[in-house]
Amino acid sequence: MSAAIEPHGGSGLSAEVDPDLPITPEGFTYHIACKSEDMADRIILVGDPGRVKVVGTYLDPGSIVYSASHREINIITGKYNDVPVTVLSTGMGTDNIEIVMNEVHILKEYNMQKRRWRTRIGETPADPLEAPFDPSSVKLIRVGTCGTPNEEVQVGCLAITQYAIGMDNTCQYYDNPAVNHTADVQEVLAKIEQTSLGRVRVYATKATPAITKDLVDACEALNGKVDASEQQRYYVGATCSGSGFYGCQGRSVGRFKGHLTIPHLTEELGDLRFNVSENEQRVANIEMENSALCYLSNLLGYQAGTVCVVIARRSRTGRSFATSDQAAKGLSNAIKIALEALTKK
Amino acid sequence: MSAAIEPHGGSGLSAEVDPDLPITPEGFTYHIACKSEDMADRIILVGDPGRVKVVGTYLDPGSIVYSASHREINIITGKYNDVPVTVLSTGMGTDNIEIVMNEVHILKEYNMQKRRWRTRIGETPADPLEAPFDPSSVKLIRVGTCGTPNEEVQVGCLAITQYAIGMDNTCQYYDNPAVNHTADVQEVLAKIEQTSLGRVRVYATKATPAITKDLVDACEALNGKVDASEQQRYYVGATCSGSGFYGCQGRSVGRFKGHLTIPHLTEELGDLRFNVSENEQRVANIEMENSALCYLSNLLGYQAGTVCVVIARRSRTGRSFATSDQAAKGLSNAIKIALEALTKK
Repeated sequence: MSAAIEPHGGSGLSAEVDPDLPITPEGFTYHIACKSEDMADRIILVGDPGRVKVVGTYLDPGSIVYSASHREINIITGKYNDVPVTVLSTGMGTDNIEIVMNEVHILKEYNMQKRRWRTRIGETPADPLEAPFDPSSVKLIRVGTCGTPNEEVQVGCLAITQYAIGMDNTCQYYDNPAVNHTADVQEVLAKIEQTSLGRVRVYATKATPAITKDLVDACEALNGKVDASEQQRYYVGATCSGSGFYGCQGRSVGRFKGHLTIPHLTEELGDLRFNVSENEQRVANIEMENSALCYLSNLLGYQAGTVCVVIARRSRTGRSFATSDQAAKGLSNAIKIALEALTKK
Repeated sequence: MSAAIEPHGGSGLSAEVDPDLPITPEGFTYHIACKSEDMADRIILVGDPGRVKVVGTYLDPGSIVYSASHREINIITGKYNDVPVTVLSTGMGTDNIEIVMNEVHILKEYNMQKRRWRTRIGETPADPLEAPFDPSSVKLIRVGTCGTPNEEVQVGCLAITQYAIGMDNTCQYYDNPAVNHTADVQEVLAKIEQTSLGRVRVYATKATPAITKDLVDACEALNGKVDASEQQRYYVGATCSGSGFYGCQGRSVGRFKGHLTIPHLTEELGDLRFNVSENEQRVANIEMENSALCYLSNLLGYQAGTVCVVIARRSRTGRSFATSDQAAKGLSNAIKIALEALTKK
């Protein structure tokens, strides 16, 4: 966990390194301290670097084969139910997700020895002996914490992402993936643009439906094994990702009061209704990473989704903060559910 | 440095905590693990959590009186030239800067005992015995690493910020500070909006002029003490902050190639000319934090600026990466210059 690895500023980099594709001679990318062979296809992402160690305690005993640390990115690779799994901290924010997704992409699909991109399934390989790469084999599930603007959602509840709303602008620098043009995602976007967020410019996408379903199934399976009093509540809905925690999520602090461009952001998000596919859906939660995770995964053909523990309730009808016990129980269940969904056969 | 502090999820938080102003009973804010009395008025900000320890080696020997760590935020407080200084890591991105600036604001101006905001100079105090707070006493200098789109700037050079261009959207959630309406900043914004960045929506502000000048003066003073061969080159210009490192800075990686909305971002920034105050100025560098630091500091009346070591050269006429020696020498000089400017009498 504490191997002090410094890929940049370290001895590896030199004037020969491509500043647009910075890879050390050892095969490390610029921010993630590992080589391709150290990263599993199934990946748990957490925001908090300290949480990588926590998730590690849920892996098969003695299974951890790799661990390293660089900046806010801690990484371990081990097994869950005998399936290889990597746990990676991203740090906070969609900008960090952009970094991690680009570097996961490099580590998965760039052939470091031959210095060229791997052929994908359906493409003609440059080398007839090369096994083509299936992008859908890469599965990423984020386990995080969040707040909610929705009075139906209580602290300690798990929010499982179906639709993704980007209040950040990270993915405005990337073309829309095909799924963003479907009627349901277009409706989510149109509804959001009718709120005050229309002033800022937002984007919409969705989690991989199979991942959303697997997370729900895993939660139901967990609840099937425990007493009614121990059941884990969950809520499936849209996840909004902010480009900050305070003003960017409608929290007006001290001298910033009266100086937010969207002061009623929380209330507006709590009031939203999407008639997506004839089932009314609402915003489940607000956090800081999911939008870029889903958007960039959709562009790459990877599978991605998010489950978060609700620790702050900020709805019109009630404001509260999770107790330590509520947060710890929710986080433990979120980790179990994410690992089960990720390693489903 | 390694005190394991967990303000949230720890025993401190409960249902009584205000989810819009989360402060533990001990007086910690939600992300920065310190109380008001543990934070000096003069603050060095670094992105990389590991760099806090490095800056600590430049402080007066034996002067460190506080150290803690939570998420990607490491903090130490000590002295430089006998003046109290706090060194804080923000993690990467403007979203993290938004968090840190809100929490520095809380720690500086919220009276935790009386649960109310402090009176500022020029305001009528609620309590006639209360000493009014001078916001300009808070000084923040960021020391970072960056790339450059400018063929005049070499790796190893220091980029000192005068104007700030936000390619992120973090500060779109906050009203413009007064300085953004001045003719020079308006010109920077107009020029940027004429590039392809007009598609995304950007913002412009500036560093505190006194901080920019103090950084230049400190660099000149340093150069006055060494041989010509040891002189530290520096370049004063506009700093562009991205909401990511790859596509958001014009790096097109693998499958993202052909799918960036602003593929020629680096070249366009390298070509920009501002005729600000009759002196032609150019973009000095691209990084990920300065825009929100300057914008939010301007709104709060705090003083802020940034000095970065150029480690990647991405101009039309030459592409290179700093060697470890170049990066280490530049970083060492940037730290010395920032500390001198910050503690100037």
